[in-house]
Amino acid sequence: MSQYLNYAIQLAKMVDGQTGINPPVGAVVVNQGRIVGIGAHLQKGDKHAEVQALDMANETAAGGTIYISLEPCSHYGSTPPCVNKIIDFGIKQVVYAVKDTTLTSRGDEILQHAGVKVEFRHKPEAEALYKDFFITKRQGIPEVTVKVSCSLDGKQATDKGESKWITNKSVKNDVFMLRHKHDAVITGTGTLNADNPQYTTRIEEGKHPIRIILSKSGRIDFDLDMFNQSNVPIWIYTEQEKLKSDIEHVEVIHCSNCSLENILKDLYQKGIGRVLVEAGPTITSEFLQSNYTNELILYYAPKMIGGSGDYQFFKTENVFNLSEAPQFEIVNSQVLEQNIKLELRKK
Amino acid sequence: MSQYLNYAIQLAKMVDGQTGINPPVGAVVVNQGRIVGIGAHLQKGDKHAEVQALDMANETAAGGTIYISLEPCSHYGSTPPCVNKIIDFGIKQVVYAVKDTTLTSRGDEILQHAGVKVEFRHKPEAEALYKDFFITKRQGIPEVTVKVSCSLDGKQATDKGESKWITNKSVKNDVFMLRHKHDAVITGTGTLNADNPQYTTRIEEGKHPIRIILSKSGRIDFDLDMFNQSNVPIWIYTEQEKLKSDIEHVEVIHCSNCSLENILKDLYQKGIGRVLVEAGPTITSEFLQSNYTNELILYYAPKMIGGSGDYQFFKTENVFNLSEAPQFEIVNSQVLEQNIKLELRKK
Repeated sequence: MSQYLNYAIQLAKMVDGQTGINPPVGAVVVNQGRIVGIGAHLQKGDKHAEVQALDMANETAAGGTIYISLEPCSHYGSTPPCVNKIIDFGIKQVVYAVKDTTLTSRGDEILQHAGVKVEFRHKPEAEALYKDFFITKRQGIPEVTVKVSCSLDGKQATDKGESKWITNKSVKNDVFMLRHKHDAVITGTGTLNADNPQYTTRIEEGKHPIRIILSKSGRIDFDLDMFNQSNVPIWIYTEQEKLKSDIEHVEVIHCSNCSLENILKDLYQKGIGRVLVEAGPTITSEFLQSNYTNELILYYAPKMIGGSGDYQFFKTENVFNLSEAPQFEIVNSQVLEQNIKLELRKK
Repeated sequence: MSQYLNYAIQLAKMVDGQTGINPPVGAVVVNQGRIVGIGAHLQKGDKHAEVQALDMANETAAGGTIYISLEPCSHYGSTPPCVNKIIDFGIKQVVYAVKDTTLTSRGDEILQHAGVKVEFRHKPEAEALYKDFFITKRQGIPEVTVKVSCSLDGKQATDKGESKWITNKSVKNDVFMLRHKHDAVITGTGTLNADNPQYTTRIEEGKHPIRIILSKSGRIDFDLDMFNQSNVPIWIYTEQEKLKSDIEHVEVIHCSNCSLENILKDLYQKGIGRVLVEAGPTITSEFLQSNYTNELILYYAPKMIGGSGDYQFFKTENVFNLSEAPQFEIVNSQVLEQNIKLELRKK
């Protein structure tokens, strides 16, 4: 009966999107056929899931089994190694769903040496939860989701720039949920000037993402609505050394080369684990051509925009051979009240 | 966005079946768009879910919202009232999914008087989780599930008493899960002598139910396998005053009138919140005719047994008018590898 391992994965999913560059992890301690402790990693720097669950179980942990969505850590990070705590509390068995390929040393041996039985029980559902975490941790860059709302013919706006609102309310709510699950939103000045967006999460208890503006030229209109909202930080990446801002929640970050790689590495260093790209054709196309897009969310409205396609979401200077064109895999498709949502992964 | 209330309900479901005569409850504390504490009521006598979640959140609870699957208590039971703790921790809003109709006083007023916003947000899924709890708490009797494995023509065995195995392995595993979710199994001496059953839960970390034998006559064969298993208690209800047992894990409970009502009330007093009836036609039919059956689980094998029907699962002395025949409502149907599972509720 592996429902306990499924419960640990459920707990991990509950905190997915709030752990920054740390993975979302859930843990359940079971003793004599009953749950005696539950835990989840709530935030980078906080207790690990195993520790939460063991603390709740306290002395009833002894002789029990701990089910964890991810292999327990065996190193001193911001907290002591979980394997030590597992041994100290007298746990007799550890079952986990995914091997942490970023660990430099295996905890299994330490546990087994202390007489703890260790079982790795592969769960594809949990693996999917950590796939991007492993990649980004090794590369030192955040997970990137590119979101595009467009017409059936692939345009984000008419040639005149009219784009409000191509997609419907149901899509808007879905985008709010996407923002909630990401640490930051990336956009460009073109979209700012055209739409005057706020990038907030207008749902109950919604977590607003940090707003990141890519502006090589540094031409920013500080009268836009976003700059009057002081509750969420704004970070501007620019090559323009003269750009300054006195606004308290606005930080200007100067880079001599504002490449996606440099910006993403800097964001990861600042603790950003997941970014959502909500931008116009230029930045969207730059991300889709790069190796830094993990996921693409496409919302299609059942409209046909036509025109010359100034705002088609994927525009590139070079012409690909078809065999070299960026290729995606469809993970999921869903109808949201007459709009279509496609979730894709870069192949 | 009500996923947090759904998470609280998920947590409640994780501990469903391990809280005895107490309800399974889950709680999630949220502050500024992130989960800061999770909790579940793990066992009667243990901390309530709200307290677990608030303790995990600690000072980060202040100004936050607590989502609870069930209305928080406002009375001194085995633990102090949860509403006091909610107020003490500075929670600003309480959202719960089901009103606790067994509470003698409403906590809402106490909370609102202390400046806490209270919202009851009806969730049918959670209501189903507590429906039987409310009934049994008011009546002081456990929830009763009757389980029957039979042929398509409603027989638990052939006229010769042959019954191993009518249903398949998939049903057996499903029955193990049923046992895990119940505090006790009720059976009779006929089934004991015919099948020599153990009523254990042979799945990983399976919780064995207490085994309850109804035997008015007191004729018990203490050589049966069950009596050699010392890890799970056996309680025998009998009207036979001479029946005694020296076996450590066996308790003989004498009653002058071993009616279902008297036995069930005694079980509730002993902390049994849920019983599973796994018995032959006599006890099964007694339960199905009574007002004490909350749920009926029927497993049909695609066989036809025929004969004179000595072991048809529902046999009664009196002949019902069709309008008075016990009536059930189908809650769910499922195919388990060529066997059919029906979940029904007494109307």
